[in-house]
Amino acid sequence: MKSIRQELSFKTPSRRDYINITSQVEEVLQKSGIQEGLCLVNPMHITASVYINDDESGLIQDYDDFLEKLAPHEPVSQYRHNNTGEDNGDAHIKRQIMGREVVVAVTEGKLDFGTWEQIFYAEFDGRRKKRVLVKIIGE
Amino acid sequence: MKSIRQELSFKTPSRRDYINITSQVEEVLQKSGIQEGLCLVNPMHITASVYINDDESGLIQDYDDFLEKLAPHEPVSQYRHNNTGEDNGDAHIKRQIMGREVVVAVTEGKLDFGTWEQIFYAEFDGRRKKRVLVKIIGE
Amino acid sequence: MKSIRQELSFKTPSRRDYINITSQVEEVLQKSGIQEGLCLVNPMHITASVYINDDESGLIQDYDDFLEKLAPHEPVSQYRHNNTGEDNGDAHIKRQIMGREVVVAVTEGKLDFGTWEQIFYAEFDGRRKKRVLVKIIGE
Repeated sequence: MKSIRQELSFKTPSRRDYINITSQVEEVLQKSGIQEGLCLVNPMHITASVYINDDESGLIQDYDDFLEKLAPHEPVSQYRHNNTGEDNGDAHIKRQIMGREVVVAVTEGKLDFGTWEQIFYAEFDGRRKKRVLVKIIGE
Repeated sequence: MKSIRQELSFKTPSRRDYINITSQVEEVLQKSGIQEGLCLVNPMHITASVYINDDESGLIQDYDDFLEKLAPHEPVSQYRHNNTGEDNGDAHIKRQIMGREVVVAVTEGKLDFGTWEQIFYAEFDGRRKKRVLVKIIGE
Repeated sequence: MKSIRQELSFKTPSRRDYINITSQVEEVLQKSGIQEGLCLVNPMHITASVYINDDESGLIQDYDDFLEKLAPHEPVSQYRHNNTGEDNGDAHIKRQIMGREVVVAVTEGKLDFGTWEQIFYAEFDGRRKKRVLVKIIGE
């Protein structure tokens, strides 16, 4: 069995952002030489998500609107978590709705994707350095 | 390490549908001969989910009601994504709520499930051919 | 390839509860001797979630409030699933929102986590014995 582990890092200029990281994950896979296996991609933080969907700007705005409607950032006092001095209570909820991680099949040395599948890093509490973990196992 | 990759395909007659695919995934596992490992099942499309829950018709209707309340199909103009000419903005959101994929343990050649766990394909933008990927690795 | 399978079990005194199970999963990993691989943790039941987030009591209360607002337990008659004689229709929905399982990278014999990542078992229909499956593959 082969395996590879690599971190990607991000510091978004705004509180929330959605970044297509597919090509960065593909680079890790190329480097590993793994032909058949499973690829896990997850944030190493708890106020961000990695998810798979379409790279279409209207859709990304729809996601942001939907999440902000379900778990609005303000008033920050509505979240007990913010009594700790944080203001990211909403970000912890948004992350659960969008999910933590993705697992992608690796087949013949490639991410085994349908036509429109793209991997995104969704940041809900940005403006600080965050890490994403890519771990691939296989042979 | 052994691995297998197989596609299932579906074309649902209605926009939304929920199909129990457990036995089809079990067939792929049998064919693979894998005894211990992990089994990934995911749609290759971005307006559908694979999830695990009970095969009970009332529950499925509860899910459908819940999703339609949170992200209604109409009016289609409420989603920016639909400005591209699509009418499936809601389906992209429903898919995120229900999740993309499942990962199931394989133990002694079987899907390692509790009593009520069943794998479902949830279609949110049907009436066209869609594919589901089953990838199993192990030995 | 090595693998290990172990069940954890829980019986919570209240209907809903959130239990940090990180150290129990770490024990299974230690026992396995696996250095590089993937670790799957999932409930074997369909009214519970395994998720990763912060171990902070205010946040856990925020999650519980959020879930109860989106899919309230009462009136139980609002869920068709409860026509079967159950009263856990809400629990099936809460579980989908929080997700079923987590997959965690194993690196150098440890769960490859960021600073605040902790694994939780979220029970939405407690007061009976429930099982959580830990399956790790790797070498």
